[in-house]
Amino acid sequence: MEGKSNKNSDTQVAVVGAGLVGSLEACMLAQRGYDVHLYEYREDIRTLEHVPGRSINLAMSVRGRTALRHIGVEDSIIAHHAIPMRARMIHRPDGSTAAIPYNKDGQCIYSVGRRFVNEVLLTKAESFPNVTFHFQHRLTAMDITTRTMTFTNPTTEETNTRTADLIIGCDGAFSAVRKEMLKRANLNYSQNYIPHGYMELCIPADKHGEFAMPPNYLHIWPRGEYMMIALPNQDKSWTVTLFMPFNIFESLTSPQILMNFFQQNYPDAIPLIGEEKLVKDFFANKGLPMISVKCSPYHVGSSCLLLGDAAHAMVPFYGQGMNCGMEDCLVFDELLTKLDYDLSLVLPAYSAKRNPDAEAIVDLAMYNYVEMRDMVNSRWFLLRKKLDNFLNLIFPRSWVPLYTMVTFSREPYHMCIKKKQRQDKVLHCTSLAVLGTAVVGGVVLTWRSGSASDWLHKTFNFVVTAGRSAVPYLDHVTLY
Amino acid sequence: MEGKSNKNSDTQVAVVGAGLVGSLEACMLAQRGYDVHLYEYREDIRTLEHVPGRSINLAMSVRGRTALRHIGVEDSIIAHHAIPMRARMIHRPDGSTAAIPYNKDGQCIYSVGRRFVNEVLLTKAESFPNVTFHFQHRLTAMDITTRTMTFTNPTTEETNTRTADLIIGCDGAFSAVRKEMLKRANLNYSQNYIPHGYMELCIPADKHGEFAMPPNYLHIWPRGEYMMIALPNQDKSWTVTLFMPFNIFESLTSPQILMNFFQQNYPDAIPLIGEEKLVKDFFANKGLPMISVKCSPYHVGSSCLLLGDAAHAMVPFYGQGMNCGMEDCLVFDELLTKLDYDLSLVLPAYSAKRNPDAEAIVDLAMYNYVEMRDMVNSRWFLLRKKLDNFLNLIFPRSWVPLYTMVTFSREPYHMCIKKKQRQDKVLHCTSLAVLGTAVVGGVVLTWRSGSASDWLHKTFNFVVTAGRSAVPYLDHVTLY
Repeated sequence: MEGKSNKNSDTQVAVVGAGLVGSLEACMLAQRGYDVHLYEYREDIRTLEHVPGRSINLAMSVRGRTALRHIGVEDSIIAHHAIPMRARMIHRPDGSTAAIPYNKDGQCIYSVGRRFVNEVLLTKAESFPNVTFHFQHRLTAMDITTRTMTFTNPTTEETNTRTADLIIGCDGAFSAVRKEMLKRANLNYSQNYIPHGYMELCIPADKHGEFAMPPNYLHIWPRGEYMMIALPNQDKSWTVTLFMPFNIFESLTSPQILMNFFQQNYPDAIPLIGEEKLVKDFFANKGLPMISVKCSPYHVGSSCLLLGDAAHAMVPFYGQGMNCGMEDCLVFDELLTKLDYDLSLVLPAYSAKRNPDAEAIVDLAMYNYVEMRDMVNSRWFLLRKKLDNFLNLIFPRSWVPLYTMVTFSREPYHMCIKKKQRQDKVLHCTSLAVLGTAVVGGVVLTWRSGSASDWLHKTFNFVVTAGRSAVPYLDHVTLY
Repeated sequence: MEGKSNKNSDTQVAVVGAGLVGSLEACMLAQRGYDVHLYEYREDIRTLEHVPGRSINLAMSVRGRTALRHIGVEDSIIAHHAIPMRARMIHRPDGSTAAIPYNKDGQCIYSVGRRFVNEVLLTKAESFPNVTFHFQHRLTAMDITTRTMTFTNPTTEETNTRTADLIIGCDGAFSAVRKEMLKRANLNYSQNYIPHGYMELCIPADKHGEFAMPPNYLHIWPRGEYMMIALPNQDKSWTVTLFMPFNIFESLTSPQILMNFFQQNYPDAIPLIGEEKLVKDFFANKGLPMISVKCSPYHVGSSCLLLGDAAHAMVPFYGQGMNCGMEDCLVFDELLTKLDYDLSLVLPAYSAKRNPDAEAIVDLAMYNYVEMRDMVNSRWFLLRKKLDNFLNLIFPRSWVPLYTMVTFSREPYHMCIKKKQRQDKVLHCTSLAVLGTAVVGGVVLTWRSGSASDWLHKTFNFVVTAGRSAVPYLDHVTLY
């Protein structure tokens, strides 16, 4: 690696965006000896009192952890900061709860603070002599052919022009780098807003300064068309996120209407948030949009590349946005070493390898919204999870639940879907066999004893009952 | 309408783009009394010797004709200029040909020159006192909130700023209006480049100054992975369009390789184009990309709207790009009168009504590429067309072939697909019934006479044969 360092030190890489993915990527490139310049439109968040922007905490799982380990900061985040969430805690409308473990082995996901993780990564990046920070640099123009970037200082409006051998856009769902790439290159691109918005609320620590709910859970209030979740914070508060269609947000026009809505849907959350705080926070905010972005390829020539949300923003329902973005950096790093740092090979290889996986998780995230809301029917969900876990127990290697593959392994995302489809086919056939057996059973049983009308009636009932147990699996097969 | 004219004369509408859709829309708005300003980045094409840009001729069918009739220019285009194409003429690799009529009633589509139609529409627009032309106005910035547009003169680089009550983007697949809308509004958007490119070539008039092929046909050379088509021009020449994957374009690197390729695939076209001209034209040009664009909604508030390719660019394989864009203007005009010119109602109503139809034809155009290439197997295609026409003969109202609905009616595009799916289901069930009967027949026939292995063998053959006849319909069902 030392040899490589010398070779790569002549190559200047501009990383645009110093969020979670950008600052991680700067560290990985620095480890490979590149001359790294990290551009960020905000000030150094470590110097700010309040950081504006998106969700306060995130669920970290295996892919993100592996990336952190790769640059030696896993422990400082997981061991000293993160709060393990070992199961989902379902809150029913009547206030009763049920725990649904993430999997049979007791593996867990971790609630981490976005700001904390970002600061650890920035401090790590700062420790490399070959990383230079450029804060208050907002990308306002880019010329792909000459690899020239124009940055504007958001405060002074001063501009300055920089070049690099490779420009990596890690600047999020509304990426400026991607916009410039779209102007010049023949990229396939799609962006989709879903009809649902989100709003963050807060459950403060209780009067003893403790968590107001059992802390080692991801709390979910599934309600069909809408949903609320809560993740624990280091300071014993909870960040609560309300998801619902924009027209519902808009229909809650007065404190009275809002309280009625909460009474009906989330009664147990009212005393936890506090009625006054709930009304104040709700009307001080508004439902924010969620966007799903696909793009292909992720590179132009050997000069430009997109990583993280800039390449594949997803809706937040699989908890994989950050994990996938961090895994992007790992995959890119693996290809760098495999292809001996030849960027003209690495960039196309990265697009080819990563695109099917990133698009798979973008699709899964969209689909999982349906599944999370479906937990409203938690008995059935529980039963299916139990069946999944039971089959996993019998066939530990060949039968792994989808959520487990996605969250607790580094199985490529598109392979997770493929394996799941194979499993669904088995369940599908099994269900049909059950259905068939039921029909034949019904025919035989009733044929032997009973009148013709009785026979018809009983057979019909058998078919309906068997059909109902088969249908959910049929739905599953259709959905992927 | 006179009353409306007075009311609408206070409303200034900016139409950006004076191509086919923009100049048509200017006429329609002028008829409704609006104060219309038509902006175009080129000079007036009527003053140019050579117009740069896209395909020279186009296939016009019922939707386009209806729109032209609406502003009183159908005759000057269809009766005095257009060349009817009554059937497809399939050219097989051995040089033999076969005609496949568009439908049983002898309805036809028309080859029209893009420039001619555009000039007729501009001259028509000029005849309205309430239309003002602004040539050499290239939109370079737009503020949706204040409805302000900045235009730059491409020659002098001078800029000037204009406002309007309503801005309508008719500026094509790479629409500048759409780009500005995407910056500010939460639009869903996708763009897809297909792996195929196109190149226009030319078959000149023969030595007698006549058409070198029978003129009243759309000539097609279907070859599976690639395809060539030719449409007749007024001057007795043919515009030939070569479609193939970019990597094939790139592989034809020398005149020798090109001629071998043509010898193998389009031998009968070589003497028609002329060997020297073919080599010269091919290497003077390059394969051009084709893009498919979807967007939703098409409007922002009551200030901004997209029509034509700007809203829904499609690949050219259904011959509906121009027809759909012109029908956009009709649909918008219908809603204007229906909703009493209240733009705050008309714009959302237009998006809601037009989006499913436009997306349907974008999808159909993509799908039809496969169908056109499939004509390579023209016997099977012919058989299917005959079956389609036969069923249409028996059930003239309930069974209309998809191509006929799309091309020769104003049935909303999404309804064309719905009806086609219903028809496919019938064919699907029929096929399955045939398959089932074959299996039972096979079992019964062979059970009565023959050994067990003989029985198995014969049954297998029956199933395979019956399955083969059913499969194409199954494919069809899947493809939509």
